[in-house]
Amino acid sequence: MNDAAIGVFDSGMGGLTVMRALKARLPQERFVYLGDTARLPYGTKSANTVRRYALQAATALTRRGVKLVVIACNTASVSLPALKDALAPLPVVGVIEPGAEAALAAAQGAPIAVIATEGTVKGGAYVRAIEAKGGADVAQQACPLFVPLSEEGLTEGPIAEAIAHRYLDPLLATMPKPRCLLLGCTHYPALKDVIARVAGPEIALVDSAETTAEAVARLLKDEGLQAPPRASALPEFLVTDAPDRFARVGEIFLGEPIDPGTVELVDLQ
Amino acid sequence: MNDAAIGVFDSGMGGLTVMRALKARLPQERFVYLGDTARLPYGTKSANTVRRYALQAATALTRRGVKLVVIACNTASVSLPALKDALAPLPVVGVIEPGAEAALAAAQGAPIAVIATEGTVKGGAYVRAIEAKGGADVAQQACPLFVPLSEEGLTEGPIAEAIAHRYLDPLLATMPKPRCLLLGCTHYPALKDVIARVAGPEIALVDSAETTAEAVARLLKDEGLQAPPRASALPEFLVTDAPDRFARVGEIFLGEPIDPGTVELVDLQ
Repeated sequence: MNDAAIGVFDSGMGGLTVMRALKARLPQERFVYLGDTARLPYGTKSANTVRRYALQAATALTRRGVKLVVIACNTASVSLPALKDALAPLPVVGVIEPGAEAALAAAQGAPIAVIATEGTVKGGAYVRAIEAKGGADVAQQACPLFVPLSEEGLTEGPIAEAIAHRYLDPLLATMPKPRCLLLGCTHYPALKDVIARVAGPEIALVDSAETTAEAVARLLKDEGLQAPPRASALPEFLVTDAPDRFARVGEIFLGEPIDPGTVELVDLQ
Repeated sequence: MNDAAIGVFDSGMGGLTVMRALKARLPQERFVYLGDTARLPYGTKSANTVRRYALQAATALTRRGVKLVVIACNTASVSLPALKDALAPLPVVGVIEPGAEAALAAAQGAPIAVIATEGTVKGGAYVRAIEAKGGADVAQQACPLFVPLSEEGLTEGPIAEAIAHRYLDPLLATMPKPRCLLLGCTHYPALKDVIARVAGPEIALVDSAETTAEAVARLLKDEGLQAPPRASALPEFLVTDAPDRFARVGEIFLGEPIDPGTVELVDLQ
């Protein structure tokens, strides 16, 4: 079992920022990434539909013999209890809880600012998770242009900066002033530099990709599931649509080229 | 049959610019609009997936007893032959052919510049339609940020202008210089003012919403399907997810408020 891969699931490409952090933190592990590119985005779908899709995706990953499933998608993380039930005893890790924990640690009693998709903001998952872990004031802002901006590779320059100001200036002007900004969508780490510059040096950025990688590392250790020392292997990619676009645009989020030959088209229905 | 409504289909809200033009051109007609908001955007999906979704949507409209179906979505218009086959003898009108015709008339032998989604550009539907109708040089540019920009109501100001320059400056610098710019996505008319200003006064804008309304008017007349004189009726709206958001954001494209009470949630699967 220790030798098996880690399954990483997202509605599309954003989860590649989580896989990037996982690869950096756990270089000896193997990964299978599944992007449900035919049915993205999940942010506008009902909780029932998202749960059904996430279950299909997680099941497809278990058929590949993974030892752990990471739900690298904020929207799909609302299905975490259902997924844990369905996949037990396989461990399942989401991005919301690690992000909320890290934000509370960074905020030190000050309010927490959260940026996310419209769906995540409306669903209030971060507000609830932060409340459950001790509580803090939370100010939220949906940033719908950040996803297409990052998917186009427009992660620097005056356009990215103007859009970041549009979202962040009113959010960070709330009183009392937030001390940390949680990136509550797995696409947003691609815009980290612009976001950090616009937010200013007194705002700590919490990247749920990194905190999730940390949570996975902890869990592998606790469960004795760590991979044996070995040379790093290329990840495998499964997508439900447009493998070429996935390979091309995915590079922005993974931070390294994706060989189109490693991207396999699968049907989840 | 003359009394039946016209069905208008789009992946989301962009098709409302077509319905706006249809309502203005054919004030005595009734309309049923279907937006597949759960599965948008279509622009990044493969042709096979788009065809499957478009067929489900068109079938849902025929179950409402419409007399004609308008595919008010450039991406879904690539499925026009399959849709015509499946719905025969019901007439089906797409946006590509009317747009191509109008562009050829406006270009007068000069090259035609086309802006559209990634899917439409890649599929080459406009290039083929312009070729089939006599031919002209075509320069294409995908503008992926225009859809989220218009859906957020950011249709004026420095951000919209900077993004328009990013897409249009290289496109319109091609030699010989294009004389007309075809708006090859039904969302784009919402950005018409900015696009016209950035393109400059020597470039004629071709809006496929208006040319499609003209084609529908012609077809109704030719087939003897015109509605009898009557008071104009409120359109009905069907969406596959998030009716509230549809009513709120749809106003940008329809150009008039949408009563949330007229928006019905439907399941196409």
